[in-house]
Amino acid sequence: MEENLVKYVWIVFCASIVALGFAFFFYRRMLKEDEGTPTMREIASHVRKGAMAYLKQQYKVVTIVFVILAVLFLIMSIFHLQNGVVWFAFLTGGFFSGLAGFLGMKTATYASARTANGARQSLNKGLQVAFRSGAVMGLTVVGLALLDVSAWFLVLNGTGLLELVGEHATLTTITTTMLTFGMGASTQALFARVGGGIYTKAADVGADLVGKTEYNIPEDDPRNPATIADNVGDNVGDVAGMGADLYESYAGSILSTMALGAAAFATIGAEMQMKSILAPMMIAAVGVILSVIGIFMVRTKEDASMTQLLKALSRGTNTAAVLIAVATFVIMYVLFKDSPDIVWWQVSLSVVVGLLAGVIIGKSTEYYTSQSFKPTQKVAESSQTGPATVIISGIGLGMISTVIPVLTIGVAIILAFLCANGFQIEFNAVNLSKGLYGIGIAAVGMLSTLGITLATDAYGPIADNAGGNAEMSGLEPEVRKRTDALDALGNTTAATGKGFAIGSAALTALALLASYVEEIKMALERIGTSVLDLGDGRMVETAKASLIDFMEYYNVSLMNPKVLVGVFIGSMMAFLFCGLTMNAVGRAAQKMVEEVRRQFREIKGILTGEGTPDYARCVAISTKGAQREMLLPSILAILAPIVTGLILGVAGVLGLLVGGLGAGFVLAIFMANAGGAWDNAKKYVEEGNFGGKGSDNHKATVVGDTVGDPFKDTSGPSLNILIKLMSMVSIVMAGLTVAVHLL
Amino acid sequence: MEENLVKYVWIVFCASIVALGFAFFFYRRMLKEDEGTPTMREIASHVRKGAMAYLKQQYKVVTIVFVILAVLFLIMSIFHLQNGVVWFAFLTGGFFSGLAGFLGMKTATYASARTANGARQSLNKGLQVAFRSGAVMGLTVVGLALLDVSAWFLVLNGTGLLELVGEHATLTTITTTMLTFGMGASTQALFARVGGGIYTKAADVGADLVGKTEYNIPEDDPRNPATIADNVGDNVGDVAGMGADLYESYAGSILSTMALGAAAFATIGAEMQMKSILAPMMIAAVGVILSVIGIFMVRTKEDASMTQLLKALSRGTNTAAVLIAVATFVIMYVLFKDSPDIVWWQVSLSVVVGLLAGVIIGKSTEYYTSQSFKPTQKVAESSQTGPATVIISGIGLGMISTVIPVLTIGVAIILAFLCANGFQIEFNAVNLSKGLYGIGIAAVGMLSTLGITLATDAYGPIADNAGGNAEMSGLEPEVRKRTDALDALGNTTAATGKGFAIGSAALTALALLASYVEEIKMALERIGTSVLDLGDGRMVETAKASLIDFMEYYNVSLMNPKVLVGVFIGSMMAFLFCGLTMNAVGRAAQKMVEEVRRQFREIKGILTGEGTPDYARCVAISTKGAQREMLLPSILAILAPIVTGLILGVAGVLGLLVGGLGAGFVLAIFMANAGGAWDNAKKYVEEGNFGGKGSDNHKATVVGDTVGDPFKDTSGPSLNILIKLMSMVSIVMAGLTVAVHLL
Repeated sequence: MEENLVKYVWIVFCASIVALGFAFFFYRRMLKEDEGTPTMREIASHVRKGAMAYLKQQYKVVTIVFVILAVLFLIMSIFHLQNGVVWFAFLTGGFFSGLAGFLGMKTATYASARTANGARQSLNKGLQVAFRSGAVMGLTVVGLALLDVSAWFLVLNGTGLLELVGEHATLTTITTTMLTFGMGASTQALFARVGGGIYTKAADVGADLVGKTEYNIPEDDPRNPATIADNVGDNVGDVAGMGADLYESYAGSILSTMALGAAAFATIGAEMQMKSILAPMMIAAVGVILSVIGIFMVRTKEDASMTQLLKALSRGTNTAAVLIAVATFVIMYVLFKDSPDIVWWQVSLSVVVGLLAGVIIGKSTEYYTSQSFKPTQKVAESSQTGPATVIISGIGLGMISTVIPVLTIGVAIILAFLCANGFQIEFNAVNLSKGLYGIGIAAVGMLSTLGITLATDAYGPIADNAGGNAEMSGLEPEVRKRTDALDALGNTTAATGKGFAIGSAALTALALLASYVEEIKMALERIGTSVLDLGDGRMVETAKASLIDFMEYYNVSLMNPKVLVGVFIGSMMAFLFCGLTMNAVGRAAQKMVEEVRRQFREIKGILTGEGTPDYARCVAISTKGAQREMLLPSILAILAPIVTGLILGVAGVLGLLVGGLGAGFVLAIFMANAGGAWDNAKKYVEEGNFGGKGSDNHKATVVGDTVGDPFKDTSGPSLNILIKLMSMVSIVMAGLTVAVHLL
Repeated sequence: MEENLVKYVWIVFCASIVALGFAFFFYRRMLKEDEGTPTMREIASHVRKGAMAYLKQQYKVVTIVFVILAVLFLIMSIFHLQNGVVWFAFLTGGFFSGLAGFLGMKTATYASARTANGARQSLNKGLQVAFRSGAVMGLTVVGLALLDVSAWFLVLNGTGLLELVGEHATLTTITTTMLTFGMGASTQALFARVGGGIYTKAADVGADLVGKTEYNIPEDDPRNPATIADNVGDNVGDVAGMGADLYESYAGSILSTMALGAAAFATIGAEMQMKSILAPMMIAAVGVILSVIGIFMVRTKEDASMTQLLKALSRGTNTAAVLIAVATFVIMYVLFKDSPDIVWWQVSLSVVVGLLAGVIIGKSTEYYTSQSFKPTQKVAESSQTGPATVIISGIGLGMISTVIPVLTIGVAIILAFLCANGFQIEFNAVNLSKGLYGIGIAAVGMLSTLGITLATDAYGPIADNAGGNAEMSGLEPEVRKRTDALDALGNTTAATGKGFAIGSAALTALALLASYVEEIKMALERIGTSVLDLGDGRMVETAKASLIDFMEYYNVSLMNPKVLVGVFIGSMMAFLFCGLTMNAVGRAAQKMVEEVRRQFREIKGILTGEGTPDYARCVAISTKGAQREMLLPSILAILAPIVTGLILGVAGVLGLLVGGLGAGFVLAIFMANAGGAWDNAKKYVEEGNFGGKGSDNHKATVVGDTVGDPFKDTSGPSLNILIKLMSMVSIVMAGLTVAVHLL
């Protein structure tokens, strides 16, 4: 029966191939579109080259880090502190995550001119090109992630690889081993988000500060030397960075749920374990297929209004979401209909809870950051008393906007937990592990429609770049108006996408927390600790110890000063990380400002359009700045859990993770929403409110927008990864922490 | 023997009287000074009246809240959810805390004109008047706090009051009962900090935005209608608010350490309990006497330079700190020399650790916020690219500046813990409760010299107001220069003071966390739960259950979703609270701006000095704004732990407290330091760097300074109280949480 179930994994494998197939199909169709006038082609090629050059540079640096870490893992495996597959699997995780970013970005840079050209025909044509190109990214991410997960499972389960490195190939070992692959994806994602985020905002802030503020020339004006760098930035930050980020969330949520499932039902038997491992994979696989259907549903009339555009996108994502909810009940029925240990409709509800939580957080993000609603309008209103009050009210708004997402996630955690364990409030080992499985699968539910939600997300920067291309190529104002409509739509969908990214990060990190304890169990067995002395006279076999026993063994209670110090350090890490990335953007932007000022000063005739700015120089500055600045925060994120583990041990690490998760989650929402609100408050003034474009009020909102840039596109989104990467590092380093710790 | 020890409490009582006596002595001496010219007197009287009017208003609102809460506690005591003394003792805590703020502020408003007049004579004379008046505040706070603590102890121990309300008058009951009084002080402090903070920053921001930015008139110019309100604000926010805040920290750290001591040695016997209760009181009492000595040591030459001024102040505080470190060893030797359960020099080291941690955090605050050092200079430098980069770099600096304080507190927690339990790493009930006592007494150590550190702190706003008075009275530039020197000195000492306030809040909150569990024990016994089922087959008598047993009983581990959701909500509370107070300042400031603009427009000849501005109107706007805006955040802070308890129970409340503590502590440092750096970056530019006063760079730093105002003087410091108030509310509401909870 258990072997019989393996065929389902092959279905998942096939689904991943289908996703990649459709991605390729959309990619080819996009390439067939006309790229427009020679100027349009030339600009697009500049941006493409800049983006590729950057990614090449970044991958060089990242490769060095990966090699060092892989060697470290190899050494650890020799000392039995880690298993012998991890060093290699770590590389595949990183490779696939980077590949997803690379392919998505390649597509995006080919698509922008074609979108602009499509917009010359009609709004619908522009939407089609941009959105289907975004879909390439969405499907590539989910396809590669599912491929990595299903292929590794088939390999570890079907071949003797684990035995070869001296492990028992039980389902528990397989899933906990696979979990460690996630660190590859996390590490790649961190560099992509931080490096890309610094790149894009250094260019953006630099371009705005001199171009808009000092010389009063519009956005994307070809006279601005930083304008190409700015467009490159959208691709490396918002496309490649986000792709790697969500690859990591998606794979992480599936992997950790598999590990939690295997752990929860270890005492019941392999069949039940296998089913609980299959559930998240199957939901993801069906989600992929439904995403493809949803993508095909996104189309609109030739003369569509903004509302109709939004409706077209919503139709796609909503259909996919509703269908996946229905499909979940079917999948769970098939898997668990005869099971006495889990009730199929109850655990399905956990998935629905996750799905709903994502939607609510997305809506709340939209409410707090869209100029259609009061909060952002208030920020715009505060521009009447100058930039200082714009900043104060934006920060106030961002902080207050954390309430709904936090309460939503809080309720979702409790509900997903209770649904999965049959509404058992009593706290015991069985209820706990089932409940944690429920939290994991809620995260999978939230991300199940990633194929299409990511498409609507990646579509944004493509439309943005199309607008830039139209402006720089001097296309008719009608075209620019259309690309602006597409861009504005992208801002709204991006808000929803951010909600999913943050919400899923919180749930996934929570699931990883529990997985960490499972990993500790493996590590203890590996170093030969077969019995645990719980201190109150009870002795428990390590292999049979429950999560609660481990909490007792390591005294992971809130009275343990090691836990409390860990919480302090974790909270601090979130702030430190943001501070470093904020300053990185500040420094890199300052260099950009100096260069742009220099060019305006030294290259004659730039402002009249007679001289050509040296775009390449600005691209090089952003590239160099991002490369240099991304290292320190990224390495700190990797080192923090290791050092904490070496000093404070397991209890300290768990404190660190919880502190980082608590403060990081809230800080991420604050920064994303404050940044989004400032951006749109500026747009609101530009739409003619409170004095309109060019007024002092407008200038005040531009200050807000500039401050918001690193908030919403560098520090905020990087925090999502920080939270998960710290968990992943802890998981991979569990063996070391268990073996060596000062206190 | 035990009764013999009670005489020491009388010594503490006498020390409190000595402190109050010296406060009165300094007050009388200050009053004898000349208040200067009729204009000076008039201005001082305006400020005094405004401040008193505000405080009256505030106390009215606070009284209503106190009456409601007291009735609630009375009702709870009827249902055996709380003991019958609390409702009344709660009122005394609130009363003394308010009284300390009131007396300090009264002194400050009498001292400012006298300081300005003193500065007409010489710098030394100005310093003497301002500093000794600050000392009135310092000594009043510690005097009243010690009086409240020692008197209540004598009453509860010596009279049959507790038996009268149906409790056993054991030392454990006495100390846990007394702990709940802390909530009175916390509640008063919260309103004082939030209300005062909103008042002062609404006036300050309003005055700056119109006066400085729009009309280019200097600070404290009598032509600015908001200038009196601004000066009133310094008194109600920085003097009365800070006084109530530190009263609460001081009393809270002593009370929680007493409770932890009584709990730690409950099984050993009453004598040992009594000694451990005496230790924090004795350290505080000796600290008071040493503070008085330190205060007398602050004097300088007539023609002292800035460095010499700083040295004069440092001499006083450093001497007091060194002497208290020495005295601690003596006290501990006397109390514990024969004790087998605690080693006198080890527990003394815990105190020294606390003292040192306070100094390090203070120094780090100085490093990050003084324009003498790189970080703040970098913020000033970033003004070259406009206000947006000033904001970005200030936020970056603030976030990075959290590292040293967090690591310091982390190390201090571990060291204080280990010192007190004889360096036992093993985690068991005995080591834990001794260690927690060590953390508590480290907080007492940090605050032991509060008498003089608060004097240097309260001295700041007095010097600031003296400068305002000199400016408005049109005194010679020489005088203004002297008051500026005094004011600048105040900024440096304020930085150190903030370090103590934040650091002690973290340690005290940690001690309160443990005290909360003690309170839970009392509550369980009160409702008749005499045996705890720990779930793993073990049954423990409630009366004999250890902290670790309670952690097991309530499953307060990091795997419990209730704990995790609590952590999320706690982190969110810190941000929500800041967001609400930031917005409150924004709104109130906007009203002020409108009023000032109106007066400039409508009252003829204001700018030429021929017309008199309507100062009273601005004072009224600040008063009304602060009153209205302080309610929501304050009430939320009180409700959050109650609601969390009713839904998630004890585990959720502990999660909430830890989450709030972790995120709140880091957020508070971030906000205080970012605000301080912006303030001094502006001063650095004003000193002639990067273009100097009036340049565009200067304007950019003014934006930073304005944003920083609510950061450093409203939201940041209020967080200290939020952290502790949430613990206090949980402690007082423990009975309700234990009896009623949904999950």
